[in-house]
Amino acid sequence: MSQPRVLIQLDSDPHPSVFDAVVAVDAGVEHLLQYSSITPGNVQALVHGAIFTRGPDQLKNTAIFVGGSDVAVGDCTGQEIKRIFFGPIRVSVMLDGNGSNTTAAAAVLCVARHLPLEQVNALILGSTGPVGQRVARLLLCQGASVCLASRDNHRAQELCDSLIERFGEGWSARISTASSGDASSLHSSLDGKNVVMSCGAAGIQLLPDKILNSNPSLCVAIDLNAVPPSGIEGIGATDRAVARGKRLDYGAIGVGGLKMKIHREALQLLFSRNDLFLDAEQILEIGKNIESALKS
Amino acid sequence: MSQPRVLIQLDSDPHPSVFDAVVAVDAGVEHLLQYSSITPGNVQALVHGAIFTRGPDQLKNTAIFVGGSDVAVGDCTGQEIKRIFFGPIRVSVMLDGNGSNTTAAAAVLCVARHLPLEQVNALILGSTGPVGQRVARLLLCQGASVCLASRDNHRAQELCDSLIERFGEGWSARISTASSGDASSLHSSLDGKNVVMSCGAAGIQLLPDKILNSNPSLCVAIDLNAVPPSGIEGIGATDRAVARGKRLDYGAIGVGGLKMKIHREALQLLFSRNDLFLDAEQILEIGKNIESALKS
Amino acid sequence: MSQPRVLIQLDSDPHPSVFDAVVAVDAGVEHLLQYSSITPGNVQALVHGAIFTRGPDQLKNTAIFVGGSDVAVGDCTGQEIKRIFFGPIRVSVMLDGNGSNTTAAAAVLCVARHLPLEQVNALILGSTGPVGQRVARLLLCQGASVCLASRDNHRAQELCDSLIERFGEGWSARISTASSGDASSLHSSLDGKNVVMSCGAAGIQLLPDKILNSNPSLCVAIDLNAVPPSGIEGIGATDRAVARGKRLDYGAIGVGGLKMKIHREALQLLFSRNDLFLDAEQILEIGKNIESALKS
Repeated sequence: MSQPRVLIQLDSDPHPSVFDAVVAVDAGVEHLLQYSSITPGNVQALVHGAIFTRGPDQLKNTAIFVGGSDVAVGDCTGQEIKRIFFGPIRVSVMLDGNGSNTTAAAAVLCVARHLPLEQVNALILGSTGPVGQRVARLLLCQGASVCLASRDNHRAQELCDSLIERFGEGWSARISTASSGDASSLHSSLDGKNVVMSCGAAGIQLLPDKILNSNPSLCVAIDLNAVPPSGIEGIGATDRAVARGKRLDYGAIGVGGLKMKIHREALQLLFSRNDLFLDAEQILEIGKNIESALKS
Repeated sequence: MSQPRVLIQLDSDPHPSVFDAVVAVDAGVEHLLQYSSITPGNVQALVHGAIFTRGPDQLKNTAIFVGGSDVAVGDCTGQEIKRIFFGPIRVSVMLDGNGSNTTAAAAVLCVARHLPLEQVNALILGSTGPVGQRVARLLLCQGASVCLASRDNHRAQELCDSLIERFGEGWSARISTASSGDASSLHSSLDGKNVVMSCGAAGIQLLPDKILNSNPSLCVAIDLNAVPPSGIEGIGATDRAVARGKRLDYGAIGVGGLKMKIHREALQLLFSRNDLFLDAEQILEIGKNIESALKS
Repeated sequence: MSQPRVLIQLDSDPHPSVFDAVVAVDAGVEHLLQYSSITPGNVQALVHGAIFTRGPDQLKNTAIFVGGSDVAVGDCTGQEIKRIFFGPIRVSVMLDGNGSNTTAAAAVLCVARHLPLEQVNALILGSTGPVGQRVARLLLCQGASVCLASRDNHRAQELCDSLIERFGEGWSARISTASSGDASSLHSSLDGKNVVMSCGAAGIQLLPDKILNSNPSLCVAIDLNAVPPSGIEGIGATDRAVARGKRLDYGAIGVGGLKMKIHREALQLLFSRNDLFLDAEQILEIGKNIESALKS
């Protein structure tokens, strides 16, 4: 007999995300255990509780979701959880702090609808934020070229260095950095790009439409900011492959439908076996399968 | 396919009410998400999570319950939630901090079993507390006359002013205030009243039976204190229309059966649509429908 | 119609035990309400919420589980809960902070498989810890003789005094104390014992195999430490009646199967009536019934 599907929501915030909880319920989780203020330092007893209660054949019915607005803490918590597992005595884990992995995967797959990813030459605005970092990582591992833009060029360079350090020198030829602080540098960093994606914090417009529309090479523009003002001027939150000239535009809600599908599908997969560890790359693969299934 | 009914319990206390949780479960809530220490200042991300996860046709399966012992904080949280909603992108909300709305509605409807509400002339003891304030508001909006009593007459006057300010000058002819601090003022403020209701804090007797029984005009006396001593001497907690002379008496448990029915019914209604906002007045209407159905 | 089975998990820790939560779900609990940082001082409103929401015939569908790593706080919370109940207006309660009661019961029953308990003469290492205290209490109430060992003999003597004070002078002839701080006192305190049980904190070896194996009278040795090093050198965590010479050895996981059965069965029993109070002794009886059923 199958034991109920239990999801342990480990959230870095004082109040665990309602969003993540409702998606979990909609993905078929039967019992959701919500935990707040989770850090790598207080997760051990919780992980032991997850892995030592059920027999090996039922471990796949327990899973862990790591979320919360502090994505860096969530990433460290994820690594700590892996360390605590005892070989095969483990449960499946999904990392998606602030929806960053599912959002980045969905955005990259929206690009892939229109361009082979290895031909992508993207400018990423707000690239040092949680979603921006993941978009860069996913595009690079798919063979794209990426320019990491930030209003603080120093932070873009740090991200660039850490990506090369983590994923190898092979990436260095395809990464560059740019400052997005003023109009002329924005203009020149957009030169020759076929994709621009805005991943900055809410409330800040990163790209005025005058600069956007003066660029002849852009095929796809994506703005991931759901709350006005949009990060890229002129893109509506609900835009979904809206043609403006030869450019196709996506807004946050336009990307959101696919994001939700990926989020739900990833949660359901967690309960198919007990040894999945779903970080950005694995979540992108889940999204690819969803896109393939939709096409066929 | 219908998504599971999710209730988000937003409670002002460090430990969300078990009472509210069990009633929610008994009303058919499938997944209860409990949140503690909720204030207007920390509610935004939770409300966004409630409204941005499900499609418009499924929003009615998510609802918010605002509770907790700090009823004033709960009221402000309720107003803040309304402000956060985006037009039709909203979920239904019920306000019932400390059971104050369901208790007040039930008490008023117990009176209505014996007297047309517009003929009621009520003395409310402990009127400045959470239940007392709502009893006053509900009686006034049903056309009754009300005397707000408090051991601190200054607070009764403040409540009187705020009710008139909020609901209009039309009410001023039907509101008065009284001090309940000593026997002689209690005696005179009870003069001519046909209803007396005690809504004070636990552990304090507000009306001795000598004064109660010397009054010839009272038709209904209700004491809402479940824990001894009773607020009105001589009324038992389980009294339910117990005749003493020409007076009918109700105790807290005697009123409690109807209160529970109203509480459960209101929770179930939350899931019938996504735009209800159930405050005292709406909860009274739910109670009226229950009373009508019982009669027919 | 039967209302859903609600378990209120009252945990002394900032994060309620995942272990206890998953076992609860697997025992058929339909709605689990988790509460953290529970002390005797903040439990009253929660208990009132548990007993005042459902009618007398449905109270058995609500129950309370008291857990958490601070077992002493849990015990006091349990006593406070009993005090808060109003006569028959109560719900069933199980005390099992840190799994101490279910673990102690399972360990005692493993001994009982091989020796009548009234013939047991046991040395309990780490006897002053939560599990050790309960093992001592359970063995004594079953007629066994017990030597309470601790590296701090003063604490062993305190425990001895408190057991005699609580359970009566009748026990004094069957209790003794010993220091387990050095090899020679360990050697002599093991003399003539037929059972040794290690209940100490993780990470400390209490009995070297040289001393263990030099003792000719031991029939059963049990080590309750799941994390290496074992408390008794040479016993493996998965040992389950493993014969070494004339001795049968059990490790923590070897005892754990029965512990889990007892834990689940106790939780299920909670919902059979509304007036159970399951402390160590009652949980031992549940374990006895499980052992009998397995034999027949």
